[in-house]
Amino acid sequence: MAKKANKPKRPKAELPRGFHDSFGEDVLEREQMLSRIAEVYHMHGFDRLETPAIETVESLGKFLPDVDRPMGGVFGFQDDDESWVALRYDMTAPLARVAAQYRQDLPSPYRRYAMGPVWRNEKPGPGRFRQFYQCDADTVGTSTVIADAEICAMLADALQAAGIGRDDFVIRINNRKVLNGILEESGLQGEDEEPRRGIALRAIDKLDRLGETGVRALLGEGRKDESGDFTEGANLAPEQIDLLMGFVSAGRADGAATCARLRELVGASEQGIEGVQELETMAKFLDSQGYSAPLVVIDPSVVRGLDYYTGPVYEAELTFEVTDEKGEKRQFGSVAGGGRYDDLVGRFIGQKMPGTGVSIGVDRLLAALRARANSSENKAQGPVVILALERDQMSEYQTIATELRNDGIRAEVYMGGGTNLGKQLKYADKRHAPAAVIIGSQERESGTVQIKDLVLGTSLASEIESNEEWKAQPAQQEVERGRILATIRAIMDRQSAP
Amino acid sequence: MAKKANKPKRPKAELPRGFHDSFGEDVLEREQMLSRIAEVYHMHGFDRLETPAIETVESLGKFLPDVDRPMGGVFGFQDDDESWVALRYDMTAPLARVAAQYRQDLPSPYRRYAMGPVWRNEKPGPGRFRQFYQCDADTVGTSTVIADAEICAMLADALQAAGIGRDDFVIRINNRKVLNGILEESGLQGEDEEPRRGIALRAIDKLDRLGETGVRALLGEGRKDESGDFTEGANLAPEQIDLLMGFVSAGRADGAATCARLRELVGASEQGIEGVQELETMAKFLDSQGYSAPLVVIDPSVVRGLDYYTGPVYEAELTFEVTDEKGEKRQFGSVAGGGRYDDLVGRFIGQKMPGTGVSIGVDRLLAALRARANSSENKAQGPVVILALERDQMSEYQTIATELRNDGIRAEVYMGGGTNLGKQLKYADKRHAPAAVIIGSQERESGTVQIKDLVLGTSLASEIESNEEWKAQPAQQEVERGRILATIRAIMDRQSAP
Repeated sequence: MAKKANKPKRPKAELPRGFHDSFGEDVLEREQMLSRIAEVYHMHGFDRLETPAIETVESLGKFLPDVDRPMGGVFGFQDDDESWVALRYDMTAPLARVAAQYRQDLPSPYRRYAMGPVWRNEKPGPGRFRQFYQCDADTVGTSTVIADAEICAMLADALQAAGIGRDDFVIRINNRKVLNGILEESGLQGEDEEPRRGIALRAIDKLDRLGETGVRALLGEGRKDESGDFTEGANLAPEQIDLLMGFVSAGRADGAATCARLRELVGASEQGIEGVQELETMAKFLDSQGYSAPLVVIDPSVVRGLDYYTGPVYEAELTFEVTDEKGEKRQFGSVAGGGRYDDLVGRFIGQKMPGTGVSIGVDRLLAALRARANSSENKAQGPVVILALERDQMSEYQTIATELRNDGIRAEVYMGGGTNLGKQLKYADKRHAPAAVIIGSQERESGTVQIKDLVLGTSLASEIESNEEWKAQPAQQEVERGRILATIRAIMDRQSAP
Repeated sequence: MAKKANKPKRPKAELPRGFHDSFGEDVLEREQMLSRIAEVYHMHGFDRLETPAIETVESLGKFLPDVDRPMGGVFGFQDDDESWVALRYDMTAPLARVAAQYRQDLPSPYRRYAMGPVWRNEKPGPGRFRQFYQCDADTVGTSTVIADAEICAMLADALQAAGIGRDDFVIRINNRKVLNGILEESGLQGEDEEPRRGIALRAIDKLDRLGETGVRALLGEGRKDESGDFTEGANLAPEQIDLLMGFVSAGRADGAATCARLRELVGASEQGIEGVQELETMAKFLDSQGYSAPLVVIDPSVVRGLDYYTGPVYEAELTFEVTDEKGEKRQFGSVAGGGRYDDLVGRFIGQKMPGTGVSIGVDRLLAALRARANSSENKAQGPVVILALERDQMSEYQTIATELRNDGIRAEVYMGGGTNLGKQLKYADKRHAPAAVIIGSQERESGTVQIKDLVLGTSLASEIESNEEWKAQPAQQEVERGRILATIRAIMDRQSAP
């Protein structure tokens, strides 16, 4: 500050690490997807809620698994009055705060959906951002697992509304009480065992990534990954590991057989038996509503990483393969998940207020849809561009643009400086314009316009040197002033024809 | 941490000061308004842009007038790598960063719109929040004032699309170059005069709030407000004050007369003359497009508070009166504003890249629309509620809900515990349900259902003690199972009839 350089240092035009910008169609595509999902939630009687980005650290609590980072993975900072506040890291913590804060006024059960960005102060990596979108639906204030089943059914509807085919995903359900029953059986249920339970839980959650050997290593002494990093294990005894792995692989051909196997595993554990019963109730209800296997399956390997789940847990997995950047085929994996949390609201009010809900990973789902989409789509999504070849005719150009807009056609007048035809056509190309409207002095005097089909016109605008050369191209036609709308309509219809 | 209390302290369920939650229809209403405005921008050829909430402090710069707060009014914090980052305080600073960062790839001019929350670390007050919505449209990379005029025309369209009548607002335009010409004439244009110029600018910007006397005081020695606080003035000489106040009150019956008066005031100042010419060009263009007075007027009292404007400035003011919380009638005032900034992008790239754009204060505009709206609207915006009177019939209830949804009617099954009729009807009332579907064991056995019109049924659900009493009410009817859809459709049609 005290030192003044001769030349002021220019700020760098860049984002902090782990953040990114979204342009044009990418944003619209996400918004469209979100509004389709929102419509499903809304039709099911869920109400929209929007909480601010910032919450008190106290009310957010610490529920993120990644505790190696400052503030446990959240972006936190001190407010003026010295109190600590932070950006929300999910939609569930703010919901718990809202359910507690307004509990006298809200209907009970309170059913809400929410969508928007969340922030994680995590190490950014390829495809791993520090701001991303979530889209949640929750029912708070009821303990019936029918509410859980309804959320699963609604999730299936929402994914289809977003554009995923009914055969392209599976919703896998499980119940934490079953797992707790197994933990009880293996003597891991006490408070002292919490750290080991946490490690075991996260290990099981990684089954599809690490395979049985990897998970067994993490349940035991630990595991060295490909990079040579060692992850400390839960140090369970071999028979404990066998019991847990038995749980994970308890899946059978159908729900009834799986439940029968789970019943064997939980033994006399009351909690375990309750969990199996809840699974059966959910499966029966979902079945009656047309959400049977293979759309919804009971899968004991689903545990969800978060500590706070207390009953049913569920996730949606895409079953189709995509080709990644390296050209390798791979499964897309989980795009949504959730479960029952019976203590999140209770921490505010000192009495139980159970809830259950799902969160859709919007960006992952969108990436999946894009990976699937036919990339040969029509790319002319830009506006019709009216070139500005005579600076004193801007009113006339704008009038044409307005006429097009009034007919529902997106249109704009070239607003850059100069009257260079090639430069303006280049601009129109860059805008992915379906057509350009060109009026030189000659056209103006004869009451006509030139209309160029920019999809048909394959020649690069940059190669065009003179007006004469350009006129020789087949994609161009001269029409009367009054025929602009009809001509452009015809061009756009032709372009969008299959 | 070291001390462990017997009873853990419960977190408070509350937001940090200056933030608020939005529920249900309030959120949907804002989204609908935003999507209508977005549609206008989109049709004009503007492209959507979404930047993250967080930017580097370096790239945000310091352009907020409120410098009395830490970090100059922004929410800033240190990232892991010690660099400072902050939440965006407007949409213009991120746009400038984007225009610089992607200048090789973006079309030029780059026309973008953006919408979303911004954050100000300001002192919260009644109706003054620290997170609020903006909705911007900008054209970057052109110096023609036709681009400014287009934004003004588009703003007029956008406000009408949002629901403001054409007679209910005025767009006032001015040009900073005219003001600069006057400052030149009054010897206030040098670099040393920057602080005094800043005070003078902000003083003029407060004309509608403080009146001529108040502004004159701030241009002179200073002003003591009602609370007794003294604001230091610009300490201008009386003749300088007269010249500036002459500028502010240069508005005449029509644009031509106003421009003529401004021409007199700017004297021989080149910048001043250029500013008047630009105003004339804009007015002529807007006139040709059907945006004449009283919709768009030249108003020399419009200066906009921000330092970075370099040419045309404009704002939209609502002209109708609203009744505030105290029952007093008042003008609603400005809901949008913007102007030309020729140096915001240049600070990144070291060369000029002019831009112009408008920002709509979404929350203020929404408040205005609500203040105007007829409050006697139909309040039954909730879902049809299917009561759950027999716990083993949940599948049947859900099937009915699905049938209603498939016909486009929002519906849900009561998910709370218990089978108490009164409690469930109370829930339906709280949800603003248009109707409730009631199936007790008797109805189930006879293949019928009871349907209650909850708008017509004025009796409070809480007063209903028995099924018998309830059946005596006129708002209830018994229909066959197959007639549910038709009956509810008829009830909802009746409710929405004027």
